[in-house]
Amino acid sequence: MALTLASVLSKSEEIVGSDHSSVVSINLFVALLCACIIIGHLLEENRWMNESITALAIGLCTGVVILLTTGGKSSRLLVFSEDLFFIYLLPPIIFNAGFQVKKKQFFRNFMTIILFGAVGTLISTVVISIGAMHFFKKMNIGSLDIGDYLAIGAIFSATDSVCTLQVLNQDETPLLYSLVFGEGVVNDATSVVFFNAIQSFDLSHINSSAAMQFVGNFLNLFISSTILGVLAGLLSAYIIKKLYFGRHSTDREVALMILMAYLSYMLAELFYLSAILTVFFCGIVMSHYTWHNVTESSRVTTKHAFATLSFVAEIFIFLYVGMDALDIEKWKFVSHSPGMSVGVSAILLGLVLVGRAAFVFPLSFLSNLTKNEKIDIKQQVTIWWAGLMRGAVSMALAYNQFTNSGYTQLRGSAIMITSTITVVLFSTVVFGLMTKPLVRILLPSPKHTSSMLSSEPSSPKSFTAPLLNGQDLEDNKCSYNVSRPTSLRMLLSTSSHTVHHYWRKFDDAFMRPVFGGRGFVPFIPGSPTDESLLQWQH
Amino acid sequence: MALTLASVLSKSEEIVGSDHSSVVSINLFVALLCACIIIGHLLEENRWMNESITALAIGLCTGVVILLTTGGKSSRLLVFSEDLFFIYLLPPIIFNAGFQVKKKQFFRNFMTIILFGAVGTLISTVVISIGAMHFFKKMNIGSLDIGDYLAIGAIFSATDSVCTLQVLNQDETPLLYSLVFGEGVVNDATSVVFFNAIQSFDLSHINSSAAMQFVGNFLNLFISSTILGVLAGLLSAYIIKKLYFGRHSTDREVALMILMAYLSYMLAELFYLSAILTVFFCGIVMSHYTWHNVTESSRVTTKHAFATLSFVAEIFIFLYVGMDALDIEKWKFVSHSPGMSVGVSAILLGLVLVGRAAFVFPLSFLSNLTKNEKIDIKQQVTIWWAGLMRGAVSMALAYNQFTNSGYTQLRGSAIMITSTITVVLFSTVVFGLMTKPLVRILLPSPKHTSSMLSSEPSSPKSFTAPLLNGQDLEDNKCSYNVSRPTSLRMLLSTSSHTVHHYWRKFDDAFMRPVFGGRGFVPFIPGSPTDESLLQWQH
Repeated sequence: MALTLASVLSKSEEIVGSDHSSVVSINLFVALLCACIIIGHLLEENRWMNESITALAIGLCTGVVILLTTGGKSSRLLVFSEDLFFIYLLPPIIFNAGFQVKKKQFFRNFMTIILFGAVGTLISTVVISIGAMHFFKKMNIGSLDIGDYLAIGAIFSATDSVCTLQVLNQDETPLLYSLVFGEGVVNDATSVVFFNAIQSFDLSHINSSAAMQFVGNFLNLFISSTILGVLAGLLSAYIIKKLYFGRHSTDREVALMILMAYLSYMLAELFYLSAILTVFFCGIVMSHYTWHNVTESSRVTTKHAFATLSFVAEIFIFLYVGMDALDIEKWKFVSHSPGMSVGVSAILLGLVLVGRAAFVFPLSFLSNLTKNEKIDIKQQVTIWWAGLMRGAVSMALAYNQFTNSGYTQLRGSAIMITSTITVVLFSTVVFGLMTKPLVRILLPSPKHTSSMLSSEPSSPKSFTAPLLNGQDLEDNKCSYNVSRPTSLRMLLSTSSHTVHHYWRKFDDAFMRPVFGGRGFVPFIPGSPTDESLLQWQH
Repeated sequence: MALTLASVLSKSEEIVGSDHSSVVSINLFVALLCACIIIGHLLEENRWMNESITALAIGLCTGVVILLTTGGKSSRLLVFSEDLFFIYLLPPIIFNAGFQVKKKQFFRNFMTIILFGAVGTLISTVVISIGAMHFFKKMNIGSLDIGDYLAIGAIFSATDSVCTLQVLNQDETPLLYSLVFGEGVVNDATSVVFFNAIQSFDLSHINSSAAMQFVGNFLNLFISSTILGVLAGLLSAYIIKKLYFGRHSTDREVALMILMAYLSYMLAELFYLSAILTVFFCGIVMSHYTWHNVTESSRVTTKHAFATLSFVAEIFIFLYVGMDALDIEKWKFVSHSPGMSVGVSAILLGLVLVGRAAFVFPLSFLSNLTKNEKIDIKQQVTIWWAGLMRGAVSMALAYNQFTNSGYTQLRGSAIMITSTITVVLFSTVVFGLMTKPLVRILLPSPKHTSSMLSSEPSSPKSFTAPLLNGQDLEDNKCSYNVSRPTSLRMLLSTSSHTVHHYWRKFDDAFMRPVFGGRGFVPFIPGSPTDESLLQWQH
C-alpha cells in the first residue's frame, strides 16, 4: 500500500521528508509510543492497569490537546486506515501469538476452541443482529437495511484478542489463556468471513442452500488458510536447515523468518483466505521446526524481536483508537441528540454481554460433556468476561461498513461509528480494568506474584525439570479439574492421547528428520540456548 | 507518509487488502527479497559477488519478466519514492552502521573523515559540475540551466555508503573501513545539504557572502545534527538505566531503543537537519551507553535485530534500483538517440572517476602531513576506488531534480534520469565486482579467509585478549604504517592521545555514572554476554 501511494507525495519542495506535516505527525506518534512504554512500565505494579488502557488514556489526552490546539478542528494525527491495521499492525501481533503459544495446551483444546470461535461467534452475531434490529427500528436512527444489521452483529462479535493477551497470563491460567486466545483468533477469522459474506451475498434471498454455501465457504477458508500457514512454516524450516547447516548467518536467518512469515500473511490476502489464521499457524510451525534450526543468537533475537514488534503494534493500535475517538467530525452528527447516541451505545453494550453469554455457557456445557478437562462455572464466567472487550477489528469493520475513506455523511452511519467508538472505549477501559481483579477473585492461584512480567510470555517459574523432556512433564500439570472419567469422556480422552501419541511418532520419524526441530540439530553446550530459552518450547 | 496516505485506499470492495494489485506487488516483492537472501547466501563464497550485485541482478531479471508479461508496458512493481527511501529504508542502515562501527577507530580518524566527507565532496561536486557544463553544452541534450548542472555535481558526488559496507571488511581493513564509511556518512549529509542549497539559493547572484553563508549553514547543520543524535542516545541510556534497574523487560527495552533512534531521525527531519548524521551519532552513543544498561537478551536481540533490519533495507534498495532501471517510460525519450545516452553516461562516469581522484589524493597528502598513521598510495587507490559506486541517494536526488512524481516529460531530464540509472548500475556492478579482488591485490592480509561472514561486522578472530581491557589492547593494533614521527606529527599524535585520555577520564567520572555503560551496570557471570558479544564493543 504505502509503497505505491508514497509516490503521490514524492515531488515537493525539500528533498528530505517532503510533506512536513506528516513528519510532524510521525514525530508526535513515535514520541507518544515511547511515553506509553515508559508510563506503562511505571504502572506495571498496579493491579487495575494494563498497557492497553494506558495507551488509550494517552491517546485520549493527546486528542484533547490537539483538539484545543487546532481550535476544535481536528483531533487526529492520522486518519484511521484499515490497510495500516490489516497489512502492517495485525500480522506481527498474530504471528507472535502463534510463535509463543504453548502448542500442547492449544492442540489439547482444539475442538473446544473451534466450537467457541466459529459456532460461538455465529450465535453471538445472530443474537446481536436480532437485538439491534428489534431495538433500533423503534428509535429512528436513520436508514439501516438488513445488511447493516447483520454487519452490526459481525462488528460487535469480533473480540479483541490483543487485549485478551494482556489481561490473561499464559503461565497462571494456561487453560483459560489457550481457550480465550484461541477463540479470539478463530473469532477474528469468522467475523471477517461473515462480514465479507454479508457484503457479497444477495441478502434478500436467504435460503438453506445459501446457508450451506456459507458453511462450506467457511470450512474451505479455514482449512486452506491453515494449510497455507503450515506449508509456509515448513518451507522456512526446510530452507534454513538445508542452506545454513554448518554455515550460519544470524542476520540472514532472522530476515528469512520474518519475511517468510509476512509472505504467508500476504499470500493468504492474495488468495482471499483468512490471513490471521495463516500467519497464526505459520508461527506455530516456525516455533516447532524453524526455531530449532537456527543459531543460538537467532533464537534469542527472533523470540524477542517478534515479541517487541507485537508489543509496539499493540500499543500503536490502542494509542490510535484513543486518539481517533475524539474526532470532531463524527460527533457533529450526534451532537443534537446526545441521548440517542448514549442509548444506542448502551443497547449495543448490553447486546454484547448477552450475545457472548448466549454461547459461552451452553457451549461450555457441551464441551464438558465430552472432555476430560472440565470448565467449571468460575472459569466460564472468566471466559465470558475476558472476551467482552471490543477493539481494533471492530473499529476497522465499522469504518468499512459505515464510512467512505474515513469520513461519513449519513446520520445513521455517523451514529453507528460513534457508538462503535463508545463501545470499544467503554469495553476496553471498564471491562478491561475489571478483568485482572476478577481473575484474581475467581481463580486464586498461589503463583500470582507481582514480579511476573506480562511481556515475558513464558516465565521460567513454571518449569524445573529437565527441559528436553519438558513435554512429557507437562502432561501431569494441566489437570485443573480432573474428575473421575466417565466412559464417554474416557473414550474421547484416550483417543485424544492416541492422536497425540501417533503425531509424535510421525513427527519424530518423518517430519523432524526433514524439517529439523529439537533434537535433530546439533546442540552446542554452553551456548546461550540455556534453560531460560528452551523452556517455552514444547 | 504511509499513515496518512493509506487512507486514500481505505474504502473498497473487500475488507482485507483493499487494493488487490498492491497486494500482488507486496507478495512479489517479499518473495524476491527471500530469493535474494537465499541466492546471496549460496553465492557468498564467490570472490566477485556481493549481495548488492545479486539483488541488482534479480531486480533486473524481474524487470525483464514483468516487461514481457505486461507486453512492454511496465517493468516496475512500485514507483520509486524518495519518502520510502528516506523515511523507512535509510534510517535502519545508517543507525546500524553507527551502532556497529568501531568507535575508537572512527574517532581516531575523525578529522580525516571530515576532510574527505565535507571538503572532498565539495571538490568533487565542483569538478563534476564544471565538467558536465563543459561537455553537455556542446551536445544539445535539451535545456539545462546552471542549477541543473550544480545538481548533477551533487547527484554524482553522493557515494553509496551501503555498497561500501558490503565491499570492505571492518576487521580486515579497519583503517580503510572507517575512512571510507565515515566519509560516506558525511558525504551523504554534504550532498543533501548542497543539493537543498542549490534548490533554495538564487543562483544568478553567487558571491562571497553567499559562499560564507553556505559554509556557515553547513557547519551549523553538522554540529546541530550531531548534538541532537548524541542527546537522543544519552536520553535513551538515562531512561533505561533509571526505569529498568532491577526490573528488566527485554521487549520494552528493545522497543524503546528502536523507537528513540527513529525519533532522533524524524526530529532531525522536522528541524531540517541532516537526519543521516543524527541517527549515526545516536547509534554510536547507544552502543556506548544504552547497550550496556539492558539485559543480556536485549543485547543479543538489538545487535542482530538492527543488523537484520539494515540488511533487509539494503537488499530492498538494490532490488528496487535493479527493477526500476528497465522502466520503459524513461527509455522512450532516449530511444531515438541511443548514442547520446551512452555518451552522456560515459562522460558522467569519467567525471565521477576524475572528481573523486581530484580530492582523494591531494587530501590524503594533506592528512599524511599531520597524522601519525599514514595513508600509503595503495590505500589511497583503494579509498578512491571504494567510493566510486553510486547508489540510491543519487537516484533519489536525480528523481527529485529531474522528475515530477516519478514521471518526466522533458527530453533533457529524461536523458539525465536514464544516465543516472546507467551510472548507478555500471558503477555498482563493474566497480563493485572489481573492488573485492582489488582490495585483495592491493592490501594482501593474512587474515583473508573465505569463511569470514560479511554480515557479521565484528568477527571473533580479531581479539584474543581479556575483553574488558580490549580498548587498551587495540592501541597497539592499528599502527598500519607507523613511520618515525616528525615533530609536527608527534605533536598532533600526542594531542590526539591526550584528547582521548581526557575523554576517558571525563567519561568514567561523569558520563558513565549517570548514563551507564560497561562496568557501571552489574555484570552477571554465565550470562549470554560472553566474549563473542562483548568484543565488538570498544
